[in-house]
Amino acid sequence: MKNFVFYNPTRIVFGESKTSKIGKYLQGRKCLFLYGSGSIKQNGIYDKVLESLNEHGVEFVEKSGVKPNPVLGFVHEAIETARNEQVDCILAVGGGSVIDTAKTTAAGFYYSGDVWDFFENKARISKALPIYVVLTLAATASEMNSGAVITNETTKQKFNIQSDTLFPKVSVLDPTNTYSVPNRQVANGSVDAIVHLLEGYFTGTHPNTPIQDGFVETLVYTIISATRKILENPTDYDARANFMWSATLSLNGLTTAGIGNHAFPNHMIGHSLSAMYDVDHGASLSIVFPAWLKYNESALSERLAHFGKEIFGKTGVTETIGEIENYFRSIGAPLRLNEVGIDKAEIPGIAENAFSLANKWGLQDYTKDVIADILGYAL
Amino acid sequence: MKNFVFYNPTRIVFGESKTSKIGKYLQGRKCLFLYGSGSIKQNGIYDKVLESLNEHGVEFVEKSGVKPNPVLGFVHEAIETARNEQVDCILAVGGGSVIDTAKTTAAGFYYSGDVWDFFENKARISKALPIYVVLTLAATASEMNSGAVITNETTKQKFNIQSDTLFPKVSVLDPTNTYSVPNRQVANGSVDAIVHLLEGYFTGTHPNTPIQDGFVETLVYTIISATRKILENPTDYDARANFMWSATLSLNGLTTAGIGNHAFPNHMIGHSLSAMYDVDHGASLSIVFPAWLKYNESALSERLAHFGKEIFGKTGVTETIGEIENYFRSIGAPLRLNEVGIDKAEIPGIAENAFSLANKWGLQDYTKDVIADILGYAL
Repeated sequence: MKNFVFYNPTRIVFGESKTSKIGKYLQGRKCLFLYGSGSIKQNGIYDKVLESLNEHGVEFVEKSGVKPNPVLGFVHEAIETARNEQVDCILAVGGGSVIDTAKTTAAGFYYSGDVWDFFENKARISKALPIYVVLTLAATASEMNSGAVITNETTKQKFNIQSDTLFPKVSVLDPTNTYSVPNRQVANGSVDAIVHLLEGYFTGTHPNTPIQDGFVETLVYTIISATRKILENPTDYDARANFMWSATLSLNGLTTAGIGNHAFPNHMIGHSLSAMYDVDHGASLSIVFPAWLKYNESALSERLAHFGKEIFGKTGVTETIGEIENYFRSIGAPLRLNEVGIDKAEIPGIAENAFSLANKWGLQDYTKDVIADILGYAL
Repeated sequence: MKNFVFYNPTRIVFGESKTSKIGKYLQGRKCLFLYGSGSIKQNGIYDKVLESLNEHGVEFVEKSGVKPNPVLGFVHEAIETARNEQVDCILAVGGGSVIDTAKTTAAGFYYSGDVWDFFENKARISKALPIYVVLTLAATASEMNSGAVITNETTKQKFNIQSDTLFPKVSVLDPTNTYSVPNRQVANGSVDAIVHLLEGYFTGTHPNTPIQDGFVETLVYTIISATRKILENPTDYDARANFMWSATLSLNGLTTAGIGNHAFPNHMIGHSLSAMYDVDHGASLSIVFPAWLKYNESALSERLAHFGKEIFGKTGVTETIGEIENYFRSIGAPLRLNEVGIDKAEIPGIAENAFSLANKWGLQDYTKDVIADILGYAL
């Protein structure tokens, strides 16, 4: 095992009907209440949150309209609202996009420069408003980690920040809040969580890490099985619950603690697809990940064989990659660039964009040519 | 899955040479520096800690002499020292006994009554000194949880407390600090961690909990395999590291979150053996647990068969219990009461003692007769 620091102070309040608990944690505060397109008004979550806030006398000001692949322009507006209204915390009701917007707003609140400075490593986050979450979409684990990803719509860059100050204080995970999540988003979340787990699993040095390996295999197996059940029956409580908790544990630091240096090259390339073409984050990963595995097939053969045996009961390396593709296909996730309207001629441009993130993330092996070669497997 | 709250803010600093980091976290503080019999002076850990404290200008006052199955009388002394010396934190360098003594001292520091009130539920812990840990013995997970167990040597009661205020702020887990742990204590720690995991696994209602089940199976398998390697080669770094991290994860709330009501009947009965006869905690469990499984064999048959298949590659229920006994025997842990000098005539007295804890823990099914029947399987 490699040396590590593990720290994760987020309080998870998990279960049916827990949405009504959020007000208790916010008593005496004034929140910026952030959410997305308004689906929480259709499915009743908005009313439940409001009732709980009112019951506990919590003051709040609403700001809605966070979009998938959330953008910097919106964050700028949210910071301004938070300052004008003199809030002392942020309540994010939504999925990764809303939570990441909340985190970035929370960090920007105390910073006199442009919050994008944090994303370009020009400044360091030293203070942030406390963040509270009611999760409505299981996928990114942002509800229990200290990172956020935002797209700068002007520069077409999808970059990330990380700081201990950004761990949510409390995250309410009520599986029934995900009953109305449509199949496409279930598939996106499933792919995202699995790729979070497998980026570490396949890129870490893994010097004798049976705990981490076993945890990843358990989570991937659970996610696959729960996703299938959800697509058949969207109100299967146990499936929604197992999916939700698995997704949270997939990127909360647990499965990567001790595995040594590891990287997120699939997220890197996927971020370019999202930043340039507004492809769903999950869809970008279901396209890139099998391509990346094929590019690295021989280097990863031993681990792929082990993974194939544990998850699919098959040990062939090519067969294992095929099983991953079959799974993605079976849940309706795209596998090839042309399925999201991108053709071969655009690969150099994508490689160029991803290369700037490779630099930021210190992934020296990922030259433009390498990135283009990987994308070649996604044609 | 059942509803749960998961909260664990302890910062884990894990790895070789991390002992020298402890001073950094204590800068500006004055600590009560607690340790045990002085083995840390022989194996060099004391010197490393001292060097780090001095390097960072940390003030401290030492109090040594914590014993296994730590007692209330010592805690009273430690509280007095802490108050007289006006410390503002506690540094525990040791295993579960030292950490539990630190936690109880930390809670008692601010309480005007007898700290034992907390153990009898006569008072509630509302404040505690911050606790820092350098772990020297992997077993109890006290380094990453909010509980403590202390023996009242006057009343012969081994009781526990729990409070969010008792999570250590920082725990340094340096596997090399356990190189000199003797085989008997390795075996004790192995049994303790495994029984922590399996009390939840076999007593929880487990309504569809593949994540928790998979995590427990991964950890038990890892502990068994690492223990065998350690007993062969005490300085096998990866084995010590895997054992250490597994033991921490075995009782930090992760594997029980979501499994529903669960109980610790084996710890309950084991605590009586320790309180009355000063039997090692691990030894009390290697005696009680197989007996408890035999008593419950038919009720647990399905889960036992699944566990046997995952861990030992065998599905017979009796065979699985036999494999657990074989494992305990192979690492030198006792299986029968007479191996620790207790004979049949003493069972009613032990049942009487354990029954008082059964009341405290709300284990209504555990009448004196039931406890005696279970112990009958350990003859």
